[in-house]
Amino acid sequence: MKKAIFYHAGCAVCVEAEQQVLHALDSNRYEVESVHLAQNTQAIDQAEQAGVRSVPALLLDDVVFHINFGASLEEVKGACHG
Amino acid sequence: MKKAIFYHAGCAVCVEAEQQVLHALDSNRYEVESVHLAQNTQAIDQAEQAGVRSVPALLLDDVVFHINFGASLEEVKGACHG
Repeated sequence: MKKAIFYHAGCAVCVEAEQQVLHALDSNRYEVESVHLAQNTQAIDQAEQAGVRSVPALLLDDVVFHINFGASLEEVKGACHG
Repeated sequence: MKKAIFYHAGCAVCVEAEQQVLHALDSNRYEVESVHLAQNTQAIDQAEQAGVRSVPALLLDDVVFHINFGASLEEVKGACHG
């Protein structure tokens, strides 16, 4: 089973990408996990190390795909810590 | 059957997105089409009208998702016509 991790921050652009792209993935081949970075701030470092620069982003086999643009990771950090 | 159209221009970023994201889609639910805009310049207008601004881009149920950034549509046009 391959792993698909979807990083988002609950924004409208994120929700649209989750509903369309994430739900279009083949669940027979991909174990899908959705991580809300604004609610799980401890996952922000992990996302950053994986190469995530903005949300929404999809990590497939350790390769990052930024899907449209909702917010930068810096903005997510600011919203969480500020 | 839903329709998934992947617009690309053969660039490295496009190829990576095609191999990972497009191949991760559920082929039981999505009829997947891949359109090489530099080789099918007549499809550029169609992509533009669908809202595509850069490649690679994935059209799912008429919603455009720009995946990372390979080239702008203007650059693709310039490469084709120049």
